[in-house]
Amino acid sequence: MKLWLNCHIATMQHGQYSIIEDAALITDAELIHWIGKRSDVLQASFSEQIDLQGAWLTPGLIDCHTHSVFGGNRSIEFEQRLQGVSYAEIAKNGGGIASTVRATREATEAELFQSAYKRIQNLQREGVTAIEIKSGYGLDLANERKMLKVIRQLGEALPMTVRSTCLAAHALPPEFKNASDDYIDYICSEMLPQLHAENLVDAVDAFCEHLAFSPQQVERVFQTAQALNLPVKLHAEQLSALGGSSLAAKYHALSADHLEYMTEDDVKAMAASDTVAVLLPGAFYLLRETQYPPVESLIQHRVKIALSTDLNPGTSPAQSLRLMMNMGSTLFRLTPEQTLAAVTIHAAQALGLQQMHGSLEAGKFANFVAWDIQHPSEITYWLGGDLNQKVIYKGQQVQI
Amino acid sequence: MKLWLNCHIATMQHGQYSIIEDAALITDAELIHWIGKRSDVLQASFSEQIDLQGAWLTPGLIDCHTHSVFGGNRSIEFEQRLQGVSYAEIAKNGGGIASTVRATREATEAELFQSAYKRIQNLQREGVTAIEIKSGYGLDLANERKMLKVIRQLGEALPMTVRSTCLAAHALPPEFKNASDDYIDYICSEMLPQLHAENLVDAVDAFCEHLAFSPQQVERVFQTAQALNLPVKLHAEQLSALGGSSLAAKYHALSADHLEYMTEDDVKAMAASDTVAVLLPGAFYLLRETQYPPVESLIQHRVKIALSTDLNPGTSPAQSLRLMMNMGSTLFRLTPEQTLAAVTIHAAQALGLQQMHGSLEAGKFANFVAWDIQHPSEITYWLGGDLNQKVIYKGQQVQI
Ligand SMILES: [Zn+2]
Ligand SMILES: [Zn+2]
Repeated sequence: MKLWLNCHIATMQHGQYSIIEDAALITDAELIHWIGKRSDVLQASFSEQIDLQGAWLTPGLIDCHTHSVFGGNRSIEFEQRLQGVSYAEIAKNGGGIASTVRATREATEAELFQSAYKRIQNLQREGVTAIEIKSGYGLDLANERKMLKVIRQLGEALPMTVRSTCLAAHALPPEFKNASDDYIDYICSEMLPQLHAENLVDAVDAFCEHLAFSPQQVERVFQTAQALNLPVKLHAEQLSALGGSSLAAKYHALSADHLEYMTEDDVKAMAASDTVAVLLPGAFYLLRETQYPPVESLIQHRVKIALSTDLNPGTSPAQSLRLMMNMGSTLFRLTPEQTLAAVTIHAAQALGLQQMHGSLEAGKFANFVAWDIQHPSEITYWLGGDLNQKVIYKGQQVQI
Repeated sequence: MKLWLNCHIATMQHGQYSIIEDAALITDAELIHWIGKRSDVLQASFSEQIDLQGAWLTPGLIDCHTHSVFGGNRSIEFEQRLQGVSYAEIAKNGGGIASTVRATREATEAELFQSAYKRIQNLQREGVTAIEIKSGYGLDLANERKMLKVIRQLGEALPMTVRSTCLAAHALPPEFKNASDDYIDYICSEMLPQLHAENLVDAVDAFCEHLAFSPQQVERVFQTAQALNLPVKLHAEQLSALGGSSLAAKYHALSADHLEYMTEDDVKAMAASDTVAVLLPGAFYLLRETQYPPVESLIQHRVKIALSTDLNPGTSPAQSLRLMMNMGSTLFRLTPEQTLAAVTIHAAQALGLQQMHGSLEAGKFANFVAWDIQHPSEITYWLGGDLNQKVIYKGQQVQI
């Protein structure tokens, strides 16, 4: 057993700081064995004692909504847009998500792995110990499989928990132009059963929006997932109110994500099903959205709020979860305490991982971050820069 | 002489990318000796050849407006504001800038040095090779001197060019309550002459705003600076239109900074005096400002635009200049090319350093960054994360 001492701890139990000052932590291999006041440590002998020099400990951060595996990037398109080229023109020239689908299909597994690995290392350096990664740029069996295999490989290569989500219903592939119902058939009858049989899928997601799939189509995907015993999530209410979040609640989704246009009824439905609201301020910021998600109403109805990077090459090329915490405060008016819950215990629930992740409690994994700060609000307050953080995953310090 | 090869270069001459593909760079000690196409390198023998493995080179970044030396931080206040505590209540309890003045006065030189050093290292890691740091939390001779001495010490300790600006006219110190003219007298007759005599001041700045100093008071500070042969800068038009930027132009200021409320006449005055417009999107973002600086008009009148972190504990605790570049694009609609000019050649001019800094040209300092990217627009496009950048200051790679 190892004794970690000379620290303060924000355990994040019950979604609050739940601070223990002058604290100590005892880890047993990959688990937290005991946590409490330094003065209450009774045991005398340890295999190792680690002096944390007055650092603050928080649970390891969790990035619960990313598209971090993709080919190419869209910086040229970003520049063109700012030069005044219209979105229609860019789309006509094969830009937008179509260009990422093309680049992802053309990339080898090794290329996808390499580029995603670098991006995820940036998140890891900041303190991320668990991440969700979605497929959704392959859009056919072979290429969705390729993405999901890369996600599994990342999980093996990185000292980090990696959850894989199949987002085949992300966009309509060129092969199914004007035949979206046929594509949904293909997803439900072939892709999902096959990819699940290959043990590549931890959850199923879809994009419910006018420019993607209707609630009826999403429901067919959810029914298939349910039959396969896979939990669901949903991109909902980002650009318009289609009731996707209520639909997600009906299927006891782990989370509904984006949610700018959700209604009061959606909020109530999510509260009733304990579906986590994942807010994505990076996309909100980059799209210069003016419709805010109903944060006050979510809090009032005790819907748990998570925050995530949405790391993707189009609407949120964000490699910093701490920046999303600051945006959660600055743009969405969450307190720093709420933003920290949003990237720890609530994000864990958005992935179904709350039993072993997301807060510092005896019996959970010893995943934590030691920050060189005076108060946990600093994690949200500073924009950029690092805070000399040390990252501990399953009881071992991560070399970064 | 060293040969740096296998790279592409955005030289930023004339404020544009001015790209050289398949380029090479020859450095002679701390200077650029030659820059051009790899195939045009004639010389055959070098003391060293550095393979940049296809990286893109840009000039070293320049952060031309920071308050990075200060005691304490204001994260607790940040949290209180989000919990609903009013600004008036926080001020009544000694919060706001008064708390930073108090903490800075209480801090020793060594403490101020230590905390600033860590923050500036974060900027350096990102690629910053020159920085401006302002005093302005001391507000009496002894404490302004202490801050300026720390700034000089940082310049000696860091492989980076550090410029010191005296901002004694930042806020009214408690000793001069209701006697702002007397404080201006004190600045003009004692502080500035004395601090200048001690060689602690490279430029003089003031905060022109209803809650700080009037244009008339600022003009007295400028006259004193002029008599001492010190260049001036100004915090102007951040919260209201007082004509500070026109006043700055009248005194041939290096820059006028913030500028959300500037008028068309101000723009023309700045264009005529070639005063740089320093935009500070971090403060704009954190204050949730809705009045945009007149970017189109500035560009139309060929006023050079710089971007900076404004790193300070109240309105912009920003330790990332790249984030400011992204905000320059996302919030202010600058193109990535314009944001790169804004943190290189234009930022150099805002500090009077353009002769030796800010672009990659023979005869200038060999200050550059090697980025692991496919196109310079990526420097602005990605939010957070690093780009495996290498930082070279005066011909030597900085160890960070
Ligand atoms: Zn997404
Ligand atoms: Zn300032």
